Amino acid sequence: MKKFLFLLITICTAQSYAQDSTLIKSKVANAITELKDFVLLPNDANNADDIDTNLYWLRKKFTERGFNSSILETEGLPLFFAALPIDDNKPTILFYMHFDGQSVDISKWDQQNPYEVVLKSKEEDGWKTESFDALNDDINYNWRLFGRSTSDDKGPIIMFLNAIDILQKEQKTLPFNIKVILDSEEEKSSAPLPKAVRVYRDLLKADYLIINDGPVHSSGKPTIVYGCRGITTLSITTYGPLRPQHSGHYGNYAPNPGMQLAHLLSSLKDTDGRVLVNGFYDGIELNEATMAVLKSVPDNANEINTNLAIANPEKVGSFYQESLQYPSLNIRGLGSGWIGKNARTIVPAEATAELDIRLVPESDGNRLKSLVKEHIKNLGYHVMSTVPTREERMKFDKIVTIMEGNVTDAFRTDLTNPFGNALVKTMESKFGEKPVQIRIMGGTVPISPFINELKIPAFIVPMVNPDNNQHSPNENLKIGQIAYGIQLFHAILHSTVVPE
Amino acid sequence: MKKFLFLLITICTAQSYAQDSTLIKSKVANAITELKDFVLLPNDANNADDIDTNLYWLRKKFTERGFNSSILETEGLPLFFAALPIDDNKPTILFYMHFDGQSVDISKWDQQNPYEVVLKSKEEDGWKTESFDALNDDINYNWRLFGRSTSDDKGPIIMFLNAIDILQKEQKTLPFNIKVILDSEEEKSSAPLPKAVRVYRDLLKADYLIINDGPVHSSGKPTIVYGCRGITTLSITTYGPLRPQHSGHYGNYAPNPGMQLAHLLSSLKDTDGRVLVNGFYDGIELNEATMAVLKSVPDNANEINTNLAIANPEKVGSFYQESLQYPSLNIRGLGSGWIGKNARTIVPAEATAELDIRLVPESDGNRLKSLVKEHIKNLGYHVMSTVPTREERMKFDKIVTIMEGNVTDAFRTDLTNPFGNALVKTMESKFGEKPVQIRIMGGTVPISPFINELKIPAFIVPMVNPDNNQHSPNENLKIGQIAYGIQLFHAILHSTVVPE
Repeated sequence: MKKFLFLLITICTAQSYAQDSTLIKSKVANAITELKDFVLLPNDANNADDIDTNLYWLRKKFTERGFNSSILETEGLPLFFAALPIDDNKPTILFYMHFDGQSVDISKWDQQNPYEVVLKSKEEDGWKTESFDALNDDINYNWRLFGRSTSDDKGPIIMFLNAIDILQKEQKTLPFNIKVILDSEEEKSSAPLPKAVRVYRDLLKADYLIINDGPVHSSGKPTIVYGCRGITTLSITTYGPLRPQHSGHYGNYAPNPGMQLAHLLSSLKDTDGRVLVNGFYDGIELNEATMAVLKSVPDNANEINTNLAIANPEKVGSFYQESLQYPSLNIRGLGSGWIGKNARTIVPAEATAELDIRLVPESDGNRLKSLVKEHIKNLGYHVMSTVPTREERMKFDKIVTIMEGNVTDAFRTDLTNPFGNALVKTMESKFGEKPVQIRIMGGTVPISPFINELKIPAFIVPMVNPDNNQHSPNENLKIGQIAYGIQLFHAILHSTVVPE
Repeated sequence: MKKFLFLLITICTAQSYAQDSTLIKSKVANAITELKDFVLLPNDANNADDIDTNLYWLRKKFTERGFNSSILETEGLPLFFAALPIDDNKPTILFYMHFDGQSVDISKWDQQNPYEVVLKSKEEDGWKTESFDALNDDINYNWRLFGRSTSDDKGPIIMFLNAIDILQKEQKTLPFNIKVILDSEEEKSSAPLPKAVRVYRDLLKADYLIINDGPVHSSGKPTIVYGCRGITTLSITTYGPLRPQHSGHYGNYAPNPGMQLAHLLSSLKDTDGRVLVNGFYDGIELNEATMAVLKSVPDNANEINTNLAIANPEKVGSFYQESLQYPSLNIRGLGSGWIGKNARTIVPAEATAELDIRLVPESDGNRLKSLVKEHIKNLGYHVMSTVPTREERMKFDKIVTIMEGNVTDAFRTDLTNPFGNALVKTMESKFGEKPVQIRIMGGTVPISPFINELKIPAFIVPMVNPDNNQHSPNENLKIGQIAYGIQLFHAILHSTVVPE
């Protein structure tokens, strides 16, 4: 599939950047130099010193471009905030990006130092290292920059800064005020962020939020995302004999916790994957216009299924995007006794299923967990939130412990939002085709609580290639995406027209 | 429960041995001395030298008692065979015992050397070591001998030898020929034994087999066992995406192997534990006489349930002994993804259930496995015995790998067998009450194939206390059980009358 994707991106690149000016090319060259410099600063948020070094670097770079900046202290590590001088008559866009990166396991990278950017070209038989001098003649948009955070998420910050350079060079009056908040703990779940919104509400006040993180759609096409699913978890444990028992002596006598769990779990979903818990899908309605947008996403079902190596998907939705509009109920783990070589002839003492539930805005996490618990109660289980005592085990025929995880809410901005429509128009006129519009991403972003706290329309506008190995060794950024990002930031800030 | 058991055994002992003669007491004293000597020889069958040393010792002891003996070479370690001179006009009893023992983990024993017998008395607050000199005045039948194989299974061999001593002293003509086969690899599953039967068929020719291994019924009462369940295993794996996938991106789309497995497993049994697979219980009939014997076993359901800490057992049988008359289908292990602290938000690539099936003579292991496979096929699964290829995963909606384990058959001698009836009468007249008759034990003995190969009526007549810590640290033998064993061997050989 990777090869296929690669072709798609190549075609897309060729179309989109045919008209690139010399100016863009020079800014791409500058961005590469700046990104090399930025990536050279380790940015593991487990190390506060790393974050300080990066903050210092950011302050310098934003100040050079005329931004006022602040280091915002939080309960965790400090955030970086910057703004161009504010005109109260203009609407304000707040951009969110992050400069911390995933920890690196150097031994798994194909380069000596993940913080020292390596330039590579793709050959038939793999990646070939290139000299940066080779870029002096012409910049090959298919070559890539390898290093931690090239894509996630230092690359977009650099694209933003270089787009600002062009706007300033053009001396155009912008229709928006610009604020930037740069997170230092995104890879650690952005825990301090929601509270920081409350502390710094005036500073962060804005009309729109644009998040530049994550990759574009797998087709490689320009993409705008309106939301992300939330998540919560349940851990369900059933009980057999107090201690594991000999399956000869007690097989047919001691209740088997795995079999109980199988009955419990199989009652939660039908064999097509649809949740059978009463009220689980309540409130979700997909009208015609919404369905049209979902269907417009250029997903290739064959490609997805081939990648997963499945004959057919579950039937919650009739196609991939539709399936994401619903909350999921997923068995992420099962355990009882031992399997494989370690299997022993026992009736195990307990069996556990770990579930995760992906949320959509219609499905409050606590409500869904209550529905599941109610469903299990109706099966005749005595539901507990602690491990049962010997006395409780002897009192109830069917007993289950359900431990609940935290809820991270979903967020979703309406597809009809005027600023969203304006962004789509900007992207369409810039790149010659409507962007891929993702109503809701399947995954969960840690900044959901931050977005929900801000209470303004939020949009994810990803800038980087889908095959960037984000969070993994050999993270990389396609140079063409730098050109894409610079132009897209430039276009958004310069030519987006929000209808009155 | 242990305390209760202890009381029961004490009462039983008091009743049974009230009439013990001085002769018996002197033989018990001799048996203790011989057992100390025998246990001193390490007998781990992983060490062939251990077995050789024990063989030498056995040869000496049996020869002293007038037995002809042979070391029978096998594909594994040698077996020990002994017989008193044969009279062709008498029926022959073959006794089976074993002299190998479980490996020891010295660090877990309460004594320095598990092969050096320690004498202990039970105090309110635990076990107290006693000097062997204390036995000179009187032998306390409640004291115990601690050491590897005191109970499993060197103790019974010593009891047998001392019973022979009495018979020889009494110079009585015995109604049986006596043969003895002593296994050297019982704790390693007695693999060479079935073939040895074929090689040494003439030597082992007998009319009845008596196995002296394992403990008496948990009530501590004299016990005779007519059979043991067999065992086979199935390992069942269902498949989701080829590799674990992000549960956000693919929750509601990629089929979940754990949910498939839950549906599959829950179709195998109802919530009361009854197997729903067509034909699984075929051929099993429990007539009134059988039910009467099953009900006569002095099991204490409250005690069993309290020990297991369960409110109610499964409903295959209406009480413990009845439940053992049926084959079981037990989930001994479940695994998919990770549980507990290691849980990750994934759709796992596969889910596995390990099943064991305990067999009764009516239920051939291969037949039952076929029935389960047929059942799973009827659920719409493509059933394979290997891991599916990517192409197979993409071809079939529901795919399962079923790996089959070996079959160890059950054995069961009919409750109406005349020799069995005679043994029951012998025990009844010796101990003043009918022995506990166990129609079939829940567990599986490795010598089942040997028993089935011999094709003669077989009976387990256990000699040792139920709380002997067999296979565990601090294995022990209650001295009262030595008196019991000596008297029982003596009675069986001397006064059992088989009706014509």
